[in-house]
Amino acid sequence: MLFQEQIKMVKQAAPELAATTNEQRNAALAAVRTALQQHQEEIFEANRQDMEQAEADGVSGPVRKRLKFDEGKLRDVMAGISDLTGMEDPLFQTQFARELDEGLVLKRVTCPIGVIGVIFEARPDALVQISALCIKSGNCAILKGGSEALRTNRTLFDIIHRAVINAGLPADCMMQLEARSEINELLECHDSVDLLIPRGSNAFVQYIMNHTKIPVMGHADGICHIYVDKEADLAKAVPIIVDAKTQYVSACNTVETILIHEDVREQLLPMLKAALDAKQVELRGTKEIAAVVDCVPATEMDDRTEYLDYILSAKTVKSVEEAIVHINRFGSHHTDCIITENPQTAEHFMNLVDSAGVYQNCSTRFADGYRYGFGAEVGISTGKLHARGPVGLEGLVSYKYKLYGSGQIVADYASGEKQFHFKNLYKRCIKNA
Amino acid sequence: MLFQEQIKMVKQAAPELAATTNEQRNAALAAVRTALQQHQEEIFEANRQDMEQAEADGVSGPVRKRLKFDEGKLRDVMAGISDLTGMEDPLFQTQFARELDEGLVLKRVTCPIGVIGVIFEARPDALVQISALCIKSGNCAILKGGSEALRTNRTLFDIIHRAVINAGLPADCMMQLEARSEINELLECHDSVDLLIPRGSNAFVQYIMNHTKIPVMGHADGICHIYVDKEADLAKAVPIIVDAKTQYVSACNTVETILIHEDVREQLLPMLKAALDAKQVELRGTKEIAAVVDCVPATEMDDRTEYLDYILSAKTVKSVEEAIVHINRFGSHHTDCIITENPQTAEHFMNLVDSAGVYQNCSTRFADGYRYGFGAEVGISTGKLHARGPVGLEGLVSYKYKLYGSGQIVADYASGEKQFHFKNLYKRCIKNA
Repeated sequence: MLFQEQIKMVKQAAPELAATTNEQRNAALAAVRTALQQHQEEIFEANRQDMEQAEADGVSGPVRKRLKFDEGKLRDVMAGISDLTGMEDPLFQTQFARELDEGLVLKRVTCPIGVIGVIFEARPDALVQISALCIKSGNCAILKGGSEALRTNRTLFDIIHRAVINAGLPADCMMQLEARSEINELLECHDSVDLLIPRGSNAFVQYIMNHTKIPVMGHADGICHIYVDKEADLAKAVPIIVDAKTQYVSACNTVETILIHEDVREQLLPMLKAALDAKQVELRGTKEIAAVVDCVPATEMDDRTEYLDYILSAKTVKSVEEAIVHINRFGSHHTDCIITENPQTAEHFMNLVDSAGVYQNCSTRFADGYRYGFGAEVGISTGKLHARGPVGLEGLVSYKYKLYGSGQIVADYASGEKQFHFKNLYKRCIKNA
Repeated sequence: MLFQEQIKMVKQAAPELAATTNEQRNAALAAVRTALQQHQEEIFEANRQDMEQAEADGVSGPVRKRLKFDEGKLRDVMAGISDLTGMEDPLFQTQFARELDEGLVLKRVTCPIGVIGVIFEARPDALVQISALCIKSGNCAILKGGSEALRTNRTLFDIIHRAVINAGLPADCMMQLEARSEINELLECHDSVDLLIPRGSNAFVQYIMNHTKIPVMGHADGICHIYVDKEADLAKAVPIIVDAKTQYVSACNTVETILIHEDVREQLLPMLKAALDAKQVELRGTKEIAAVVDCVPATEMDDRTEYLDYILSAKTVKSVEEAIVHINRFGSHHTDCIITENPQTAEHFMNLVDSAGVYQNCSTRFADGYRYGFGAEVGISTGKLHARGPVGLEGLVSYKYKLYGSGQIVADYASGEKQFHFKNLYKRCIKNA
């Protein structure tokens, strides 16, 4: 079958999947869990082959670490599936109900987005997590994992797909792409695909965003900042900066630039420099920084660079205002932090910095669905429409308006013969839990 | 100043506007209301000139009707501003708060989207409504109205802009475009503009969607359907179809195609034909329709056409399933209705039809922010990300994650030295109002 015809079949399966109950979707998740356990040896064997190939191809250590799928990873993804099964149904939730007039009731009810294409790195556990999130949220999934995981992904996909079909979900509710060239075909399918979630390098995500009419959720670069205020507790600042830079250097939520209030420059920099040296972090600084500690001279290019490496740029600012302007101009609206003991300054910074995450006195590395307690995530969005920040189950649903009438026509309301009375039947509220 | 430089100034004003309190934004709205009243003669005079020009240019009656801005329209927009002022602040709402660990609290708080570009038809009241919605929701607005309203819009914009500045909001929080050529420049400004809302013809909205990297919210065509089920109350079906077709023929929520269950074809069609004839609606039908009543032969093209005219296409279907498949294939995901007395059939249809509005036993013309009780709307979205259906105040906000720490670093949690305890402090709930 032609590739785009196959994607159309997925689109056609979407309404049927959208109408399944939470029980049906949970039963499918349970079947996936059982099947993964039963077929674990098959999975590990496929992964061994991928690992051997990766080694032969000279794939780097960190990539090989993510590629590895062993008992521990299997246990983790199975626990993740159990967690999802236990969660409340994200679908069929009435967000509000309002009687517009006698016998005319409007309800806003959650529903799936439809068909979601996810392109992700060579991490087999991601395939399982994304599949499970899509099943729970009633979304059809088109999956493309990193090519280094080809054999593992093929095995995992087949096991999951069979389990889902046997559990009674529509056969076309999942599809896997294997060739990189198929991504370009996928980008053309704006009639069939409702959302793309690309994960990977800045250049790759930018490429996707620039070559499709399908809405894209995700983030390209992650240029995160920490601003050390004049009222900072410097004993907190140093470990936070070191953690944010070095705890996992290639993550998107790693800090790339620190902004230091000039009043604390002389006190902070020697301590910070010593701590960074201990972790072999190269410090790049403006002349105000170089006046206090040894550093590589920074250029404006450093303001715009996501190093993804043991490099940190630093500059001084005269005020929190200057820090805010710098971050809104050079940042990527991902996650930015202020170190201060002054709650007013913190709130001002957090209200004016235009980022998905705005932090006070903690590491930017907390920007992650697991650490927020969302369970699994499909990615982090720096867009401001729909979901922002780490995207979990809630970010995978939309809603529709259901209007239940008994013969009402608009002419009667336009003429004034009838009037709306807008009586709220249900309303969202904030509850102290 | 160069045009794109001016848009950058708007972007720079966005964080300041985002940090304003509800009191400040309400004071600005009150100032706008007062200024409109004080300068009403100036507004009416500008509108008289636009109306004269329109007449001289041979602009059609319906367009001139929308262009007219008189005492009645002024009263309506002023009432709309008062309603908005009375509404709860859409910003700074904590959607949830969770303690991740001792002294580490995560809050999800609503905030504006940022800079919104709205391109709308020659309706001066729309300029006032959109400005007011943007002020209330803390969004900077770039406004481009239909050229027939040039003088009225210029006068209204100046009055509103002065009032807003005098009330203390940032001077660059609003901007008006006048030349159509400026739209193309606006489409390039993806670094400064967060969202575009184009209203107008299908072709125009498609053009915008295809020529910008800025996210677009809205709808192109509106091909709405009514399906008359075998268990329909035909006495309801006829007036609903007539209303949905003729109450305002050029609206996007007007019905274009009706699907009739073959079991009720012979009973429904003669009644329906008589009612449509009385309103001079041309019926186009398949041969199954033509077997019962006189009609113009329909082609597949009719399935894909938004007539925006006194024309209705009709075909028969063998089941609700066939109706659902037709609507999901040929519809525009706007608003589709089932006429049936069977609640299970209705629910099945409403769950499987993939549209922003799914109705039972009432006219598709109800798809409108005012009729839903939202107050003013900026448009209707057929997209499934962010707001769907009529978009009011709630559709103009995003959220950000605020994380308040006291020195926490991720390394302590990665090593297992510390553990998250995820204690929900606030949670949304559904309340019986």
